[in-house]
Amino acid sequence: MGTAAVAPWKQLLFGAIEANSHLKHSSYAQLATIGVNGRPSNRTVVFRHFQICVGIDLVEFGSVSLQIQELKLCPFSEMCWYFSDTWEQFRINGRVEVIDASSSDQTKLQRAWFANSLKSRLMYICPAPGTPYNGEQPNQEVNLDPSSGPVADYCLLLLEPEKVDYLNLKSNQRLLFSSMTSGTGEKCWTSEKVNP
Amino acid sequence: MGTAAVAPWKQLLFGAIEANSHLKHSSYAQLATIGVNGRPSNRTVVFRHFQICVGIDLVEFGSVSLQIQELKLCPFSEMCWYFSDTWEQFRINGRVEVIDASSSDQTKLQRAWFANSLKSRLMYICPAPGTPYNGEQPNQEVNLDPSSGPVADYCLLLLEPEKVDYLNLKSNQRLLFSSMTSGTGEKCWTSEKVNP
Repeated sequence: MGTAAVAPWKQLLFGAIEANSHLKHSSYAQLATIGVNGRPSNRTVVFRHFQICVGIDLVEFGSVSLQIQELKLCPFSEMCWYFSDTWEQFRINGRVEVIDASSSDQTKLQRAWFANSLKSRLMYICPAPGTPYNGEQPNQEVNLDPSSGPVADYCLLLLEPEKVDYLNLKSNQRLLFSSMTSGTGEKCWTSEKVNP
Repeated sequence: MGTAAVAPWKQLLFGAIEANSHLKHSSYAQLATIGVNGRPSNRTVVFRHFQICVGIDLVEFGSVSLQIQELKLCPFSEMCWYFSDTWEQFRINGRVEVIDASSSDQTKLQRAWFANSLKSRLMYICPAPGTPYNGEQPNQEVNLDPSSGPVADYCLLLLEPEKVDYLNLKSNQRLLFSSMTSGTGEKCWTSEKVNP
């Protein structure tokens, strides 16, 4: 077992992202949460980038249907990220913070919004996801001012890892990383090699 | 909305499996459950096959570390299966039955065990997954009699779908399938087109 102030699993994850970057689907992972009915919920999310020292930025895959309500009730989640070329699996467990129009810090939201293409931004002004389809085609002609800020439905998910379970099926190795927060609020990581 | 006795999402899933079969990772999906600590848990599983009229056969990916205990406490799960070539996502929600040495029906377990290669069967006689690694290399020389039945740690997961959320990102379509059980115990499916 070892301890480190810098998250030691990040190097492994950076390596996996780099080594699998030729595969478009390598930026997709699955995020499990607990639904408002108390049952597990699981959907594909797209990795955007790391917020330095904070966590992992995600947006929901293809739609804005993630039930934000469920994350506000129960912020715990586990993201399972499998890299198919290098046979590596990361199970990243932690809290998800929802950053939306009601959040105090609007800078992150603004930055994420403008990092989207205009086409992607249009997705957030489509009819509410999961509501019955009434035959209307989404209006492709909607004019969206490129300089307009985030629409009301737009939100960003920020996963703050607390535990990471790393499995490498090529080398048949498994490492468990756990974080602890010191009295001064600093996060410290321990790692342990376990049987795969 | 329509109703049907035969699970209508199965045709879509068969189609996706077929169309993505050239990609090895297309048989991998992520299974979310609720851990013994009440938090979400998520891991890659391998699709084996359909049990006619019953459900979806799965084995855990690369190891036997799935906390069977957590499934016995809370059998609910959601499997998220993304097909990267056809841009289709299936979120299959239902109960998972664990079939192990203590189950009354040993036929399924025996059949699944013998369908594994000898090399795969050896994985189940490695040291307990998740326990500290003591430096010992798994004994590759272990002799396993090819005619021996399942070892005590071997188990099979059977997911019985109750709801399926289908999203097609190429056609931008989303369908929700829900099941109801009739008085005579027969399952009936309804489907609804919703906004993606």
